[in-house]
Amino acid sequence: MADTSPAPLPPSAPPSASPPGPGPGAVPRPGLPEAEGWSCPAPLRDHPVVVTGHGGGGALSAELMTHLFAPAYGEALLPGLADSAVLTVPGGPRLAFSTDSYVVRPLFFPGGSIGDLAVNGTVNDLAMSGARPLALSCGFILEEGTALRTVDRVARAVGAAASAAGVTIATGDTKVVEAGHGDGVYLSTAGIGLVPEGVDIRPERAAPGDVVLVSGPVGAHGVAILSVREGLEFGAEVRSDTAPLAGLVRAMLDVTPELHALRDPTRGGLAASLNEIAAASGTGVVLAERAVPVPDAVTAACGFLGLDPLYVANEGRLVAFVPRRHAEAVLAAMRAHPQGAGAAVIGECTEEHPGMVVARTGLGGTRVVDLPIGEQLPRIC
Amino acid sequence: MADTSPAPLPPSAPPSASPPGPGPGAVPRPGLPEAEGWSCPAPLRDHPVVVTGHGGGGALSAELMTHLFAPAYGEALLPGLADSAVLTVPGGPRLAFSTDSYVVRPLFFPGGSIGDLAVNGTVNDLAMSGARPLALSCGFILEEGTALRTVDRVARAVGAAASAAGVTIATGDTKVVEAGHGDGVYLSTAGIGLVPEGVDIRPERAAPGDVVLVSGPVGAHGVAILSVREGLEFGAEVRSDTAPLAGLVRAMLDVTPELHALRDPTRGGLAASLNEIAAASGTGVVLAERAVPVPDAVTAACGFLGLDPLYVANEGRLVAFVPRRHAEAVLAAMRAHPQGAGAAVIGECTEEHPGMVVARTGLGGTRVVDLPIGEQLPRIC
Repeated sequence: MADTSPAPLPPSAPPSASPPGPGPGAVPRPGLPEAEGWSCPAPLRDHPVVVTGHGGGGALSAELMTHLFAPAYGEALLPGLADSAVLTVPGGPRLAFSTDSYVVRPLFFPGGSIGDLAVNGTVNDLAMSGARPLALSCGFILEEGTALRTVDRVARAVGAAASAAGVTIATGDTKVVEAGHGDGVYLSTAGIGLVPEGVDIRPERAAPGDVVLVSGPVGAHGVAILSVREGLEFGAEVRSDTAPLAGLVRAMLDVTPELHALRDPTRGGLAASLNEIAAASGTGVVLAERAVPVPDAVTAACGFLGLDPLYVANEGRLVAFVPRRHAEAVLAAMRAHPQGAGAAVIGECTEEHPGMVVARTGLGGTRVVDLPIGEQLPRIC
Repeated sequence: MADTSPAPLPPSAPPSASPPGPGPGAVPRPGLPEAEGWSCPAPLRDHPVVVTGHGGGGALSAELMTHLFAPAYGEALLPGLADSAVLTVPGGPRLAFSTDSYVVRPLFFPGGSIGDLAVNGTVNDLAMSGARPLALSCGFILEEGTALRTVDRVARAVGAAASAAGVTIATGDTKVVEAGHGDGVYLSTAGIGLVPEGVDIRPERAAPGDVVLVSGPVGAHGVAILSVREGLEFGAEVRSDTAPLAGLVRAMLDVTPELHALRDPTRGGLAASLNEIAAASGTGVVLAERAVPVPDAVTAACGFLGLDPLYVANEGRLVAFVPRRHAEAVLAAMRAHPQGAGAAVIGECTEEHPGMVVARTGLGGTRVVDLPIGEQLPRIC
């Protein structure tokens, strides 16, 4: 790397603070006001380098977005940079546009592969705005020396997943880096989808009175990765839940176009998705913790490892914020779809504690469900 | 990497051969028929692993596409996978869609940075189908331990390049890999553009009688990277030519919508672009070698290093195939545009030697200009 002329470094600060101007002396030191209110590894914030948590989908990721990317992009940035953007084409339809990179390790795991994740992840980002996926791009960053049969196996998974999701692979790219500068295969996918007329699904639209639904049991993907990576076994094999969700969303939209917010709880798990929607909409979210479906093997693994299933990544689940009057019919439609067979009501939106997520625990108490800082497990997708 | 269950490996073979079926014993050995006709490093083909040339934009890249990606994607693949796809949206406009990953080393070099390349490269891929770029996505793969100021500097370059190209950054993603599994910053961009009515620019449309134009002197980008990477100096500093070309293409389309084919000669240089267009259209291309503008410093560097400027990468140049009756007016429009000030006529299309590129040399002879096999210099973009 040839970083010879230093540029101003945006200071680390909580996402809720307004971005301070760049300038010398901006590197935060322990005890300074901008470090207040953080509940976890404060030392990370004292080192102005990339840490694994910056890729975790939690508070560190949000901080990077708010304090580094947004000011750096400046006016070139479409306001509200999100997992999926909706663009209005002059004289044409509304387009959803999304991208993700994939660095999961290992490349193949019970229930799927990096190829499945790349296709399903981008299809799902599009579906979360109600869009019908139209076309994907797929770029490979290959490490020199990787077996071509491995590349072939990944590409076959990409093709099969695209066929299963009913989406075309329209364009691609391949780059090669020297051995020791990659990890076999990294993928980047982007996708375009069409947003049907009358559909306006955004985190900002969640509102008090909405019912919160989840499409199935949570935590399987993260535990599947962990078990294969660490060679752990938790009774029954846990398989990734990776799946395309555009069909499920379509079935839900057939009930009513009035879905308010959808999210696929990947990195950061259910907790991160609920917090994002609560923060964007300013509504309070009350989670009925015991109503959240968790597979027994995931509960066992999380207990053993000290993980909270609410923070474990999923790759084939969605959480939906639906007006109360439509909730029952939407739940029924979800349960009638293969990807929503295990759907459940897990909470509701309130006027109280705006922008926060609170869990009613099994013992009748309540606790705040925070946005995670980094991630419990790196390189999960 | 956990490649535990081997999948069938597509055998290596020249792109012109029909894909043989997968199966054991398919790895080619020296002297076997499938190795015939190749003019260079045959041993690469005997090792079924990724080599740097697979990312070079030459014959090895084409082979990977034809014999690995196309069969692996199967029916999910939009026919004719190219740098940029044109999609017809039901009831809407035609959309161009493109993606590229960027792994250039070093991240910053005379005349630009990985951020400039990522934005301009995708803008240019869209422009080569005549599209007006609408929105970009930008994904970062960061290596743990990279200075945040480096990430910031790259992101600022992305923002500035997007503003300069008049395109919005609509969506993004950040992943982090452990130290030793990346190289500071890798970028992946995708882009959407609108193809104006009446415009149909594709390599297949080049035809005998077309005049071949280049928008300016070639070879600067590759030599700029090489000089900073290797610490070489060639008299005057050579700066990358990275630039967005959508404005230039718009100026050319204002003369006539009847441009046949456009290409930005990046990896593989002018030789690769001309060969792709010749092969796709089946027309013969005659290149007037002395008419190709090459900066003196690039000529000097190539002479010193044994490189052929026709094979050196450019990141802000285009080659255009234009019907003869429009050529003069299009050339004038190019020269009137800042990105086309050095435009020149460099050749023409003929009925002879269909699908091949032949150069008329300075001495009055001719030579075949082949598709490069791999690349003269890796990680150039």
